[in-house]
Amino acid sequence: MRVANYGEFELIKYLTRDLSTSDKAVIKGIGDDAAVIRCNKHKYLLITCDMMIEGIHFLTDKITPFQLGYKALAVNLSDIAAMGGKPLYALISAGWPATLTIEYIDQIYKGIKKGADQFNVSIIGGDTSKSSQTILDLTVVGESSKPPIERSGASLGDLIAVTGTIGSSSAGLELLLLKNESVKISSSTKNFLINVHNKPHPRVSEALILSKSETISAMIDISDGLASEIKHICRESNVGAIVYENKIPVNDHVKIAGKILNKDYTEWVFYGGEDYELLFTIKQSKTEQFLKIIKNTDIQYSIIGEIVDKNDGVKVMQDDKKVPLTDGFDHFKSKI
Amino acid sequence: MRVANYGEFELIKYLTRDLSTSDKAVIKGIGDDAAVIRCNKHKYLLITCDMMIEGIHFLTDKITPFQLGYKALAVNLSDIAAMGGKPLYALISAGWPATLTIEYIDQIYKGIKKGADQFNVSIIGGDTSKSSQTILDLTVVGESSKPPIERSGASLGDLIAVTGTIGSSSAGLELLLLKNESVKISSSTKNFLINVHNKPHPRVSEALILSKSETISAMIDISDGLASEIKHICRESNVGAIVYENKIPVNDHVKIAGKILNKDYTEWVFYGGEDYELLFTIKQSKTEQFLKIIKNTDIQYSIIGEIVDKNDGVKVMQDDKKVPLTDGFDHFKSKI
Repeated sequence: MRVANYGEFELIKYLTRDLSTSDKAVIKGIGDDAAVIRCNKHKYLLITCDMMIEGIHFLTDKITPFQLGYKALAVNLSDIAAMGGKPLYALISAGWPATLTIEYIDQIYKGIKKGADQFNVSIIGGDTSKSSQTILDLTVVGESSKPPIERSGASLGDLIAVTGTIGSSSAGLELLLLKNESVKISSSTKNFLINVHNKPHPRVSEALILSKSETISAMIDISDGLASEIKHICRESNVGAIVYENKIPVNDHVKIAGKILNKDYTEWVFYGGEDYELLFTIKQSKTEQFLKIIKNTDIQYSIIGEIVDKNDGVKVMQDDKKVPLTDGFDHFKSKI
Repeated sequence: MRVANYGEFELIKYLTRDLSTSDKAVIKGIGDDAAVIRCNKHKYLLITCDMMIEGIHFLTDKITPFQLGYKALAVNLSDIAAMGGKPLYALISAGWPATLTIEYIDQIYKGIKKGADQFNVSIIGGDTSKSSQTILDLTVVGESSKPPIERSGASLGDLIAVTGTIGSSSAGLELLLLKNESVKISSSTKNFLINVHNKPHPRVSEALILSKSETISAMIDISDGLASEIKHICRESNVGAIVYENKIPVNDHVKIAGKILNKDYTEWVFYGGEDYELLFTIKQSKTEQFLKIIKNTDIQYSIIGEIVDKNDGVKVMQDDKKVPLTDGFDHFKSKI
């Protein structure tokens, strides 16, 4: 059997089958957005790493090196945010082709530094190597004064919500890769969507507010696509879900791009990925408290569904039809 | 200017020139074996990452996947050891070509797990991606109850010492890459040297004893070659050094291989790298205490030189000649 025959999650599950730990300080090991170590009652350490490889996660002629650096950090910050943590430190492992210019790499570092400054993260180390493709693997360490919000905390009756809007990043990627030059699309739509894809905004401050509110039962960042992330929460929490398609917040630019490209935009919404918005569930008993707290913030959020019994499966309500939610994006099985 | 024109250290220095941090908890950022974060007076966190890339750091037909996994962890453990830390947690970022078999990758994981079990390390997370070459980037987190032993602590009069023997790994690599099949070398020499190269033993327990002894002023692990590491300590500590070539411990197999290959074995010793032994300096005022403590351990060590004034430079005594120590291995400028 070869890697190509496996899905990403299937492969990870198989390879890590013997890697459980008996260390009681490890609150969460493999299988969430970040690993969690308990330092003491009021201090939890969060650690995550996320690799970006040329030709797999990005194409050098489709993203500026500055954006690439910023994004490589942002996707890691998003993982720390998804656990309710505050990012603090980053390490940069990088592989550079010998033909790359120093100016190009320097711009990558400037992009990383921009994100680090913006989110108060210190860059404290790394490793540098020659390689045939550009590789950026960042490790980010964060902390939390509370136990982290895991994927596994959702319960029957909890509401399902997301921050921001969904599908823009994936629509942006499609526009970036568009070969048909005759397609006429306004520069405002194009620029908006491509910018969301190339320079995602990790929801660090939003996640901290949500975490502090103590009204959230589960949280995950949307990196692989809304459908896949909802299924992650349901699988880990041992529950089902019903999602209302018409409640999912979608930017008008996404709908415009769908119309022009003659494509059902909900494909981007459910299977696109890389939105780096937060998907979270609100404890049923804490809904009023949640609404009260969130009213005083500028967090953009939308309630898109509800947690149901496991036996009812994971479904989406399209107009008046309830249909099962199918699987999401898997970069092991598809091309950039 | 392209990457190929730069040395590794020169490149890192240039790229990280603006990455200093004002965070007072960061005791050591970029520029040592591991980053160090102060948690409280008696707890320091150490973090390091080290990437191994197919074709750059290893060739798939020259190392078993089990050895590769073990080595990918070992080189990181060695970095934590070099700061006097105890390794605790590891994250595995990996890139796999689609054609790789699951059995091959599984063996890599088994090798990592072997090392993790041996050194009481828990594997707590990671990231998996498709890639065109095999990439293994491990992050290891460790801790120390004392301030770490940095590269910058050496003072005039301190003795310079190493653990184990030097040069075996590099001699092993040369044998691995040997194309001339007519060279006759005993299998015991060949197996010994190749095994040191493919399955290095990180000096974790030795480093902890040295650290606890409070007699050590500076420490580094020998990954890039003895010459390069001595120069690191001298540069960071603002001192010079004199090293006695005849005091450097070299395994007989290295000398035998040198004779058979008609090569000056001291090239492996000074410029070979990947020995993952510890290079450390003993405080002049604590020499007796060091000798007393080390007598009761099974640590193999050799005193190979002395720290001198910066103006005297970094020199090596060969027979009765004092010659300047030239630069070490740089994988940016050479091939595997």
